[in-house]
Amino acid sequence: MFFASDNSGPVHPRVMAALARANEGYAMPYGADAIMDAVRAQIREIFEAPEAAVYLVATGTAANSLALATLAQPYQTIFCTPEAHINQDECNAPEFYTGGAKLTLVPSQAGRMTPETLRARIAGEESRGVHGPQRGPVSITNVTELGTVYAVDEIAALAGVARDFGLPVHLDGARFANAVAATGATPAEMTWKAGVEALSFGGTKNGLMGVEAVVLFDPARAWEFELRRKRGAHLFSKHRYLSAQMLAYLEDGLWLELAAAANAANARLAHGLNRGGAVRYLYDPAANMSFAAFPRAAHQRLHEAGAQYYVWEGSLEGDDPDEPLTARMVCDWSAADEAIDRFTDIVQG
Amino acid sequence: MFFASDNSGPVHPRVMAALARANEGYAMPYGADAIMDAVRAQIREIFEAPEAAVYLVATGTAANSLALATLAQPYQTIFCTPEAHINQDECNAPEFYTGGAKLTLVPSQAGRMTPETLRARIAGEESRGVHGPQRGPVSITNVTELGTVYAVDEIAALAGVARDFGLPVHLDGARFANAVAATGATPAEMTWKAGVEALSFGGTKNGLMGVEAVVLFDPARAWEFELRRKRGAHLFSKHRYLSAQMLAYLEDGLWLELAAAANAANARLAHGLNRGGAVRYLYDPAANMSFAAFPRAAHQRLHEAGAQYYVWEGSLEGDDPDEPLTARMVCDWSAADEAIDRFTDIVQG
Amino acid sequence: MFFASDNSGPVHPRVMAALARANEGYAMPYGADAIMDAVRAQIREIFEAPEAAVYLVATGTAANSLALATLAQPYQTIFCTPEAHINQDECNAPEFYTGGAKLTLVPSQAGRMTPETLRARIAGEESRGVHGPQRGPVSITNVTELGTVYAVDEIAALAGVARDFGLPVHLDGARFANAVAATGATPAEMTWKAGVEALSFGGTKNGLMGVEAVVLFDPARAWEFELRRKRGAHLFSKHRYLSAQMLAYLEDGLWLELAAAANAANARLAHGLNRGGAVRYLYDPAANMSFAAFPRAAHQRLHEAGAQYYVWEGSLEGDDPDEPLTARMVCDWSAADEAIDRFTDIVQG
Amino acid sequence: MFFASDNSGPVHPRVMAALARANEGYAMPYGADAIMDAVRAQIREIFEAPEAAVYLVATGTAANSLALATLAQPYQTIFCTPEAHINQDECNAPEFYTGGAKLTLVPSQAGRMTPETLRARIAGEESRGVHGPQRGPVSITNVTELGTVYAVDEIAALAGVARDFGLPVHLDGARFANAVAATGATPAEMTWKAGVEALSFGGTKNGLMGVEAVVLFDPARAWEFELRRKRGAHLFSKHRYLSAQMLAYLEDGLWLELAAAANAANARLAHGLNRGGAVRYLYDPAANMSFAAFPRAAHQRLHEAGAQYYVWEGSLEGDDPDEPLTARMVCDWSAADEAIDRFTDIVQG
Repeated sequence: MFFASDNSGPVHPRVMAALARANEGYAMPYGADAIMDAVRAQIREIFEAPEAAVYLVATGTAANSLALATLAQPYQTIFCTPEAHINQDECNAPEFYTGGAKLTLVPSQAGRMTPETLRARIAGEESRGVHGPQRGPVSITNVTELGTVYAVDEIAALAGVARDFGLPVHLDGARFANAVAATGATPAEMTWKAGVEALSFGGTKNGLMGVEAVVLFDPARAWEFELRRKRGAHLFSKHRYLSAQMLAYLEDGLWLELAAAANAANARLAHGLNRGGAVRYLYDPAANMSFAAFPRAAHQRLHEAGAQYYVWEGSLEGDDPDEPLTARMVCDWSAADEAIDRFTDIVQG
Repeated sequence: MFFASDNSGPVHPRVMAALARANEGYAMPYGADAIMDAVRAQIREIFEAPEAAVYLVATGTAANSLALATLAQPYQTIFCTPEAHINQDECNAPEFYTGGAKLTLVPSQAGRMTPETLRARIAGEESRGVHGPQRGPVSITNVTELGTVYAVDEIAALAGVARDFGLPVHLDGARFANAVAATGATPAEMTWKAGVEALSFGGTKNGLMGVEAVVLFDPARAWEFELRRKRGAHLFSKHRYLSAQMLAYLEDGLWLELAAAANAANARLAHGLNRGGAVRYLYDPAANMSFAAFPRAAHQRLHEAGAQYYVWEGSLEGDDPDEPLTARMVCDWSAADEAIDRFTDIVQG
Repeated sequence: MFFASDNSGPVHPRVMAALARANEGYAMPYGADAIMDAVRAQIREIFEAPEAAVYLVATGTAANSLALATLAQPYQTIFCTPEAHINQDECNAPEFYTGGAKLTLVPSQAGRMTPETLRARIAGEESRGVHGPQRGPVSITNVTELGTVYAVDEIAALAGVARDFGLPVHLDGARFANAVAATGATPAEMTWKAGVEALSFGGTKNGLMGVEAVVLFDPARAWEFELRRKRGAHLFSKHRYLSAQMLAYLEDGLWLELAAAANAANARLAHGLNRGGAVRYLYDPAANMSFAAFPRAAHQRLHEAGAQYYVWEGSLEGDDPDEPLTARMVCDWSAADEAIDRFTDIVQG
Repeated sequence: MFFASDNSGPVHPRVMAALARANEGYAMPYGADAIMDAVRAQIREIFEAPEAAVYLVATGTAANSLALATLAQPYQTIFCTPEAHINQDECNAPEFYTGGAKLTLVPSQAGRMTPETLRARIAGEESRGVHGPQRGPVSITNVTELGTVYAVDEIAALAGVARDFGLPVHLDGARFANAVAATGATPAEMTWKAGVEALSFGGTKNGLMGVEAVVLFDPARAWEFELRRKRGAHLFSKHRYLSAQMLAYLEDGLWLELAAAANAANARLAHGLNRGGAVRYLYDPAANMSFAAFPRAAHQRLHEAGAQYYVWEGSLEGDDPDEPLTARMVCDWSAADEAIDRFTDIVQG
């Protein structure tokens, strides 16, 4: 019963097999491997973006920080939600990689900006000429950090606001596959067709060992990205093993298959929790992550049974067994029905 | 016939098997996996350093830059050779990670500093009070970038100079295993017993997929290192796959076995090249890397046969078939005798 | 009728005279001038802080950024109000000088944090271990950017919260003199006795040409400050001219005399505006800066008469002559009664 | 007898008078003062560069660092001599302001690069693709840090090498006036006509209190420069006092008059030292700085008489009264004939 994060599950067997296949003899290092050529071609095809620049790194923080450093100047500010991973969970990596850019927090609802809140915050900057930070990129996360999902037209609306101010848009897609699976949108529709300029395309949370792609739909700054990647120590010598993971992920739609499985697992979890009346969902569990409140006693039963997930708000310790505490539960591709059902049974008591 | 670099060979089968074994169910992320506990214990034992802080990253540049950023202040200068990887091959990553420290180049012979050249360069800084950069760490590479090896007493002598000035010592051990195999020294003798404070302990060039350990013999700044690693986007969520590689590397002395194999391959290469009189070695091929000069015609024959290595100085194109051109040849653990012999046979004509 | 800022007025004649006196022959550069010895001694005496380290720079942004860079690590976050000069008006200088630290905005009332809002924001950080930014210094501004003033016990309460978390406190005292003059507190009471560790002690807005002192009550990091000042290009060769300004400022209490004059001018302005009922003060005009709302028609009359001040909210252009627009008005030491009275007469119509 | 540096002399009376004149009433802050308009116009006229962007800062290190940060990317390397002020005397300010660029040292003769040494060093970089630092700007100092002077055609030859590689050229003109006075070249000839893109135009060492202009002959990155200046905390609120100094400096050729006086003082010094045979000049004393070797006994006599200058090589203490020690002697505009003659008389014994 592991629902703490989708970053803790196993690597998919087809990915492991691809790593084994790649492990033959010598291969050109630093991204010049032949497998990377296939990765690049596949991503361009999947995204209907024949000119896109495609790079691999090993962590989501690297993907986000390097993409943003390529889009932002150090005297600018990046617009994101308070909950954004780049704000809360990267230990100032965006500030580091950009050389000291600021983050301006856009008020959010259920983890999502609205065009109105975004426009207001952007308008609020640059009222001070050279004195204040200058407006920089807008960074959106989809699936959001609260498990909600932007529809394609919502992304397009935010990107439209950015475009009104001449600002580029970055999409943190650590769970991009889950967003595509949840909405049925095409990868192109959710990115460049909606106005996204740079994408962090996650793999690690969805069955890979540790690979994320950065896709620059405008390749004008591709070489700068490569230099920043190397300078950030994120260029791998034995790059073929990143390429092999990503290629297996893309082939035969494995990335969407695994995301659909994770989303379905989360739906099963939600269904099981919703059986009784004691569980209240905070946000619509649209993808593979749920936030729900249920009584302390149920949490305590889960805890005793060894279930792993985050108690997001409240404390297991307390006198009132009926007080609702919020749980964050995340399903990865490998979440087993049996574990889900056992978890929800325990909650239902 | 691939002798271009030891960063291009395959992963050792025992490492692949360890990855497969690690790929079961869920594991705690971000270095809290159980395998990392075993890695830490093994490294402490191998290095006879029960207090050492041990961390894993995926690239050698990350290991070096993060170690140096923990040792250096941004207003300091780091002492290294002109050939140092941190100077030539990291696209300013040390400057980036330290927040703008400088590198002071210490004249070298065959890739090695001497205590005299190091002392002179250190003495030459800080003659200007607050105006000049302040003295910072000394960074030594062993095996050096030119394939030569420092003996333990040579490291101790350099570290003694650093200690005279109160400066910490970093050892770039991208090929540390090869240095240990070449000298017969113990890991402790080559590091903290000689005065080294922080070690980049390489695995990638010696049979791993992409793992380097950073060993801080003085753990006082361990937490700072962890924060800098995260901020640098080098903390892996699925960390168990780094741990599993490193544990397989350490178990049963695989790391030394592979290094010895690579060194032996290089010795065989040297022996084969030395058969005739046309080859001149630039440096004593002490470990797994050779620099040698031989006639252009031999290079052209190699090129036609598809051999891969670096022509370090000179150009394949030229009129004089007898003009000596310098080759850099590196053997990894998987270098086959047949390929070596074929290579040397071609050179001998 | 210039009330746009106290950064635009003339230099006090006694300061000009001091510059002329200092302009004799040669003087040791870079802060080794004899006048600086007198400055240091005077500041230590005025602040009852015989061990304090004292440095001069030429801009308030430099004072703040260098002080914060000495107190903060790049993986930390600095706590300040949204209105803080370091957040709004320094074009990311704090992020630059700290090497990429973040600013966490503490909700404010009339430009002031409360112990409760500060405690909540500090508590909200570091819930994520290595992933989130670490807690760093608290930066308070007094006089605040909205013209309000913290009493000594309010500063002490905020510093007490910081101390509970082991965090240092920086005081942005660009208008420190006005705050002292307004409260009657001693310089020691408003700083180290209340728990302040580093002070930006402003002079430029109060009659100097361009000098701010940084006072480090804990001198442990004084040398680091000196190196950061030089590295930031803020160490002046002809330092005596900074020293001479500051010494004239300190001698015979000129700094307090000028601040009292500016505060009195602002009180006269408030009195004049309050005569009728059309003016509504947003904040209590405790020092030398006022924010007040009055009808558009009055603004238009001022504009036609050439008055200079900021229309803080609203636009001069609009149909409704009675709609209240907010003005920011700042008095410097040289504000003339005649100009003030003319200004208020115009407002009153 | 003060010959330690030209950064320690007094401000010229005409500059002091200009400051007094500027000290009337209110003036627009942050470079919007009317005097700055006159400065900009004058510099454009003097340099025959009607499009040039012109900015003022208060220190030479700020001028150099900000100019270089505007020309260089953080993954590049800047080419300069080992003696360059940006290398030796700015405590890593260029590395700080550029966000971590490197400095590549070009071997020099008497403080000067040659086209050949520059070309070789530039050619030596970028042999490693993404791995090494990329080629960045060339920074030349004139008058050099060793008191020698580049003729206009020498600057043009260096800039020609830079142009061959597509690199911009920065001129550190902390003593630009002395170079112009020494060579008789026009300001345009020594800068943009020779291929210089950005100039640090010094005033502080030549009679100002603390002002340097940065002249960007290509104004394309002017706004970026302004943002970097503000972010570096080098934008002055009471900017008129910088403008007033610079305007006085430019008017009626004061800048050249003072430089000529300093150069003449140095020539008198050289003449006086050359009278006997005991003095050996290291470099031709072309401008206002001399390096010369003379016996220890002469140094000891100077020391006893209170003369101030740098003993550049060697130590006053030693047994041999005849051993030659090297002195660095710098004359500023205010150097008095009497002091010079007394100095040389003492040397001559």
